[in-house]
Amino acid sequence: MPARKSLDHLDCVVAETIDVIGDRWTLLILRDAFFGVRRFDDFQVDLQISRNVLTDQLNELIRHDVLTTVPYQDHPPRHEYRLTDKGRDLFDVLMAIWRFGDRWEHSDIERVAIHKGCGEVTHMVPACAACGETLTRHNVRVEPLLDVVVARHAAGTNS
Amino acid sequence: MPARKSLDHLDCVVAETIDVIGDRWTLLILRDAFFGVRRFDDFQVDLQISRNVLTDQLNELIRHDVLTTVPYQDHPPRHEYRLTDKGRDLFDVLMAIWRFGDRWEHSDIERVAIHKGCGEVTHMVPACAACGETLTRHNVRVEPLLDVVVARHAAGTNS
Repeated sequence: MPARKSLDHLDCVVAETIDVIGDRWTLLILRDAFFGVRRFDDFQVDLQISRNVLTDQLNELIRHDVLTTVPYQDHPPRHEYRLTDKGRDLFDVLMAIWRFGDRWEHSDIERVAIHKGCGEVTHMVPACAACGETLTRHNVRVEPLLDVVVARHAAGTNS
Repeated sequence: MPARKSLDHLDCVVAETIDVIGDRWTLLILRDAFFGVRRFDDFQVDLQISRNVLTDQLNELIRHDVLTTVPYQDHPPRHEYRLTDKGRDLFDVLMAIWRFGDRWEHSDIERVAIHKGCGEVTHMVPACAACGETLTRHNVRVEPLLDVVVARHAAGTNS
């Protein structure tokens, strides 16, 4: 497997996140991890990939601090793979991908998400962290942070 | 560029979505498209990739019906790349990736999202499509669709 070309020079958090998850196997391993898979053989059976490729991918996720190894047996020594805090935080990304797939891809839907709070089959809707309204591409604009800081400072000094 | 191995056999909408977006350049092109980039030369300057690689990636996105070409000049003929409805629907995925990057990656934050509705700097929080509460990995469980259908049918006939 060729080494990934670093995208750090693009200096953008999207690019850096893609450095972590922008590999098809990576996301499939994460999907399995969220579904409860922890052991090498279980990943291997579920994903139907070679052990070498799986080993490389798991090591890459450990290097990015998305997975960590936890011993579960001493004789012989065995470990399983668990999501780190950073890895668990990819939940939103996986839910967004899942929603997109349900809308646009043509597989039969095999698994659904249940929100334990209300008991309903659910999917994620992106809500504004400030006011809770649904975010859409129509009501979000992207601005350079510097412009926002300058504008707010100006508004503050004018008020 | 080697052809991608199809993941259709995994029969999962997550895997199929990864077939569309699971390439680092793909997501970076989408990021640029959401930021308003439409023309080949602008993508090329922003992403700093070879014209051959960019051509391949744009064609792949067209093949997946994520981008489409629209003529903007007749003499000589020129076209630009625009998001399709399907492409625009990747907004949630990109917002989720952006949020993750802001939390875990170490670039200086250069651009922020503003929710036009409330005027605040925002990021996306995943909300339950049924009740609006925030979804977390703790309050979501994954179930086979068949189990849900069977359980609801049983609940209906017992009530």
